[in-house]
Amino acid sequence: MRIGVLCSGGDSPGMNAAIRGAVLRGVEVHGFEMVGFMDGWRGFHEDDRVPLDRAAVRGISPLGGVILGTSRVQPFLSGRGDEADIQAIRDRVEEYGVDAFLLIGGNGTQTVAQLLTEHGIPAIGLPKTIDNDLSGTDYTFGFDTAVSIASEAIDRLRTTGDSHRRCMVLEVMGRDVGWIALHAGMAGGAQVTLVPEFPESIEQISEWVLSVRDRGRSSLVVVAEGFRLAGDEAQTTRDGLDGFGRKRLGGVAEVLAPLIEQRTGIETRATVLGHVQRGGSPTAFDRVLATRTGIAAADAAEAGQWGTMAGLRGDRIAMVPLAEAVGHLKTVPEARYEEARLNFG
Amino acid sequence: MRIGVLCSGGDSPGMNAAIRGAVLRGVEVHGFEMVGFMDGWRGFHEDDRVPLDRAAVRGISPLGGVILGTSRVQPFLSGRGDEADIQAIRDRVEEYGVDAFLLIGGNGTQTVAQLLTEHGIPAIGLPKTIDNDLSGTDYTFGFDTAVSIASEAIDRLRTTGDSHRRCMVLEVMGRDVGWIALHAGMAGGAQVTLVPEFPESIEQISEWVLSVRDRGRSSLVVVAEGFRLAGDEAQTTRDGLDGFGRKRLGGVAEVLAPLIEQRTGIETRATVLGHVQRGGSPTAFDRVLATRTGIAAADAAEAGQWGTMAGLRGDRIAMVPLAEAVGHLKTVPEARYEEARLNFG
Amino acid sequence: MRIGVLCSGGDSPGMNAAIRGAVLRGVEVHGFEMVGFMDGWRGFHEDDRVPLDRAAVRGISPLGGVILGTSRVQPFLSGRGDEADIQAIRDRVEEYGVDAFLLIGGNGTQTVAQLLTEHGIPAIGLPKTIDNDLSGTDYTFGFDTAVSIASEAIDRLRTTGDSHRRCMVLEVMGRDVGWIALHAGMAGGAQVTLVPEFPESIEQISEWVLSVRDRGRSSLVVVAEGFRLAGDEAQTTRDGLDGFGRKRLGGVAEVLAPLIEQRTGIETRATVLGHVQRGGSPTAFDRVLATRTGIAAADAAEAGQWGTMAGLRGDRIAMVPLAEAVGHLKTVPEARYEEARLNFG
Amino acid sequence: MRIGVLCSGGDSPGMNAAIRGAVLRGVEVHGFEMVGFMDGWRGFHEDDRVPLDRAAVRGISPLGGVILGTSRVQPFLSGRGDEADIQAIRDRVEEYGVDAFLLIGGNGTQTVAQLLTEHGIPAIGLPKTIDNDLSGTDYTFGFDTAVSIASEAIDRLRTTGDSHRRCMVLEVMGRDVGWIALHAGMAGGAQVTLVPEFPESIEQISEWVLSVRDRGRSSLVVVAEGFRLAGDEAQTTRDGLDGFGRKRLGGVAEVLAPLIEQRTGIETRATVLGHVQRGGSPTAFDRVLATRTGIAAADAAEAGQWGTMAGLRGDRIAMVPLAEAVGHLKTVPEARYEEARLNFG
Repeated sequence: MRIGVLCSGGDSPGMNAAIRGAVLRGVEVHGFEMVGFMDGWRGFHEDDRVPLDRAAVRGISPLGGVILGTSRVQPFLSGRGDEADIQAIRDRVEEYGVDAFLLIGGNGTQTVAQLLTEHGIPAIGLPKTIDNDLSGTDYTFGFDTAVSIASEAIDRLRTTGDSHRRCMVLEVMGRDVGWIALHAGMAGGAQVTLVPEFPESIEQISEWVLSVRDRGRSSLVVVAEGFRLAGDEAQTTRDGLDGFGRKRLGGVAEVLAPLIEQRTGIETRATVLGHVQRGGSPTAFDRVLATRTGIAAADAAEAGQWGTMAGLRGDRIAMVPLAEAVGHLKTVPEARYEEARLNFG
Repeated sequence: MRIGVLCSGGDSPGMNAAIRGAVLRGVEVHGFEMVGFMDGWRGFHEDDRVPLDRAAVRGISPLGGVILGTSRVQPFLSGRGDEADIQAIRDRVEEYGVDAFLLIGGNGTQTVAQLLTEHGIPAIGLPKTIDNDLSGTDYTFGFDTAVSIASEAIDRLRTTGDSHRRCMVLEVMGRDVGWIALHAGMAGGAQVTLVPEFPESIEQISEWVLSVRDRGRSSLVVVAEGFRLAGDEAQTTRDGLDGFGRKRLGGVAEVLAPLIEQRTGIETRATVLGHVQRGGSPTAFDRVLATRTGIAAADAAEAGQWGTMAGLRGDRIAMVPLAEAVGHLKTVPEARYEEARLNFG
Repeated sequence: MRIGVLCSGGDSPGMNAAIRGAVLRGVEVHGFEMVGFMDGWRGFHEDDRVPLDRAAVRGISPLGGVILGTSRVQPFLSGRGDEADIQAIRDRVEEYGVDAFLLIGGNGTQTVAQLLTEHGIPAIGLPKTIDNDLSGTDYTFGFDTAVSIASEAIDRLRTTGDSHRRCMVLEVMGRDVGWIALHAGMAGGAQVTLVPEFPESIEQISEWVLSVRDRGRSSLVVVAEGFRLAGDEAQTTRDGLDGFGRKRLGGVAEVLAPLIEQRTGIETRATVLGHVQRGGSPTAFDRVLATRTGIAAADAAEAGQWGTMAGLRGDRIAMVPLAEAVGHLKTVPEARYEEARLNFG
Repeated sequence: MRIGVLCSGGDSPGMNAAIRGAVLRGVEVHGFEMVGFMDGWRGFHEDDRVPLDRAAVRGISPLGGVILGTSRVQPFLSGRGDEADIQAIRDRVEEYGVDAFLLIGGNGTQTVAQLLTEHGIPAIGLPKTIDNDLSGTDYTFGFDTAVSIASEAIDRLRTTGDSHRRCMVLEVMGRDVGWIALHAGMAGGAQVTLVPEFPESIEQISEWVLSVRDRGRSSLVVVAEGFRLAGDEAQTTRDGLDGFGRKRLGGVAEVLAPLIEQRTGIETRATVLGHVQRGGSPTAFDRVLATRTGIAAADAAEAGQWGTMAGLRGDRIAMVPLAEAVGHLKTVPEARYEEARLNFG
């Protein structure tokens, strides 16, 4: 069996370990021939391929990024995913002699995996996103690394906040879901954690910050990039618009910080963590999770479990039907937000 | 309700976060009065108590060790756990006005929690061990930090091994189970991982090391302290005995390294990671897991779920009957060892 | 002798170690009485003092921030430093029974130390700035930690840049001097390093980025916040102005990134590292440098070497006359910039 | 000019950056042809060469170990360095068409560089040792990384020591000099620091440990591997002999720990850090120092400054005559040891 591997979407720490796990198991145990497409669907469209064998994946687990490259190039040339698009992929697949796909990506990529399988092009999904917003799995690889980096940033900012008696606002990734903010905030003991799922008013936020001051401490506010203020129909917080509706560079932290300072009288500073969260060497947790995901995907290919995704379920990797996994975001539930609020104010 | 908290056994990164989670939830939400006993059962026996409130747990999550101290002092004065021992504890409990216990510890401590509950002294367990050998929970806090440190050591040793073309042997903790070795070895891409559950012969190990050399690489061997060579009935590897049965300082790595060197002709060096694995600031993963464990334990106390333990089940914390959790070690199953062997040789 | 200690200006990793070194040597060896003023000159003006003894400095070297707090409150009430201002300080000094000062701060603070000494209020300076812009010392504590954090950020961003074939622009601190950018850029192998001392044109920068692309790599551009484009008299890069001269949030990286993308056609992303650079646990280098600085300052007080600053000279700490140290920034010399340019393009 | 590069002795973080600096400057600026010998003198003797150009050194600065490999193979076949040995090298040099050497190594290697130059084979030294024992330079690259790792280990061990009220003994590298112990101990606030230069008695050490206990703390003892107890003529501490003079595995920490426990009654545990100290990604400080060392060595080759070594002098790299640098160890002076003793007991 010849299996094609490609990565799609933003990079996520652990992608190399996932590829390595799949290749060692697939090639050495199951006897597959494996091939990687460079830069996701671009390499597929343009026939930019590399062989994947033991030598190709040597020593790559600790490395950030991904040896195959990744991109947001779409699989469907028309962008619609209609029959002509599928046929174009089918033609390529035959040309390359590829029997099946292992697709490493987020929600969009898993949807593609399902669609391809439905159209007779066998595919298995390896879920990957630092945002942890995929259903069908407890955690996705990349998330733990992102949380670690954000948590370390909180530890650093806190000392400056305490020394200067400032309120520090840290913006972390999370356009639609607040998992990184939630976990990093809990790990770092943030006094306020703001997530897209639960809008709060600036009055409430300021009250928390003042209450922390009254207890003799400085506030550390963690905010997910997708958070918006309660009642902010224009979404100016989230979209970083200035008063005239013009798009501003910078993010929600840079909108919040002056509002907090204005209402509390406490000097407040914003930091936008940005791309630093998604790069660099993965944590041990993500390396192990990714390696096992790759192994399980190779085993599922051997077993012909097409249309599934390798999800983490407790301490096991389980193959989950893609139909169950795709199409709805995994958001922060209220009970988890309540846990975080323990520390608020 | 007045609740006593104590830590028993070896320290494990995350204990402070667990205490903090239990106190914030217990005191602020449920209105408990909480008190900590210093140095585990020693503080209990000697009436060495501190109040646990919001101020007492301020900012402690990122700190290694545990603010209450811990020790291996036993709860039962006679060491047997008979009726007189229980009565002695009952007397103390009445004297202190303590209504229930939150006990943070490993397998032994969870057994005590069950026994106390059976004898009418309500207790809830918070599982803690870097070894990850407790049943009833996917992972225990402290384990992820230990794996991270061991994995970082592998990354460091590998560069020296490659530069000098040496075989590097790293001994990690794990007297009875190989979880740390298994995960750190997978994260670091160890060429050989040796765990107590699966004895291997020195011939087999040497063959793997030679096969790695033949592929042009240097071997990194991770070995759990409790590993012993196949056929080694005298357990000289595990117990670090010299040829005359005398106990040697140093560990199994220092026994293995010269054996490997002798059989392969490859210069081989041993490193024993030791106590470094269990100290210092916990990973974000362990801080979150421990905080949530503490919160769940406080909620269980409020709900009167005595005789249970706060276990991780997927992405939730579930209260597990202690009867299910204690008494049998969670060992590395063969399927997981097979995954690791992918990289062997 | 009773000695007052205070910290002024932005926080810098190592301040705690400096205080600890000065206190252990001053109190235990020289028999000083030592007192700390909270939040810099604010604590001095408002009589907010704490005793500094062995117990007060226990275990503080690894901690970020500073136990005394710091602020930008000025010593001179009128802001001019005239005779009335000096007299006000003299009155306070007599009231507090303080015989001399150890002043921990940057260029401004060292100038104050000199002025006080000239007016009969003995002072010794401990140079501190993450910017490393002080003359009279090889390096200031805090700088190595800032460089380490920036260098780690480069390592992380690079993997994302390589995976996506993007140009990544990282803005680091350095309003007037480019030391952090220079060292972090060299440590991380940045393809372009931009510092305030050496303006470059957008054409030149784009040419370097294209040349890196032609060699098959992705560019990592490090830019100090105070850099401005050559020929940019309006300083729009440095001051982050938009086209209408309005002050923008965000920094120079957010101005540069779209300019680079526009001219090269290469997707380009900006990251502003911000306050993360100045917080958290100091590197071992900074802890040692700061401790030794504190020790040397205490020894200089015992020896009556007022009007001096404890500077690093090779592997020794030397007391430098403040007159030599203050008043001129230490900027990046051309030879050092040439070294960095080795990697350009 | 064709220049040969080789590394000799133990690996030291920063060697890759040094090679990269020398190659970028040598090839791109001075137009040298450069060639690397694999595994030190082994590659020279066996004609195992690789070309060193821009592509060969791409992205290697953050990597631990060294791309060329290193070994303890001697340059002189007879081991004596007599005329026949020199002639053998001269023959090889002519055969390879090499005009000069850049030699990366410690004291022994620098001595060889001097000897070769004296015999008409031009050489320049790049000093490298984690031990920091070379004269003629403030610090050698690799030292800062080793100190960082040892300092982080102290931070970790301290939390376990405090939680269990144990005395923790950490053994770090330093067979002849105590620089790593001195700096790591100061960075970590060790209560006792033991170095080869200053023997102390077990009575004195135990007294310090008891005095720390009386202040309510737990002791952290850092000991260099070459330390020996005062009055220990048989050097049993240093050589790790048991009572019968037999060589034991393990190091001085494992001799000291039971002695301390026996005399103080305080539970005491030993950790031997070992090879972890010399591997892995270099600190930013070491990467910058090593890069600049390489650049300066290339410049010196262009300038014909043979028989010199690129030493750090303050914030500059200076070419030091090898005659001044070799032949005597740089040991810890008494004044530095006195600084460390501030914290003792």
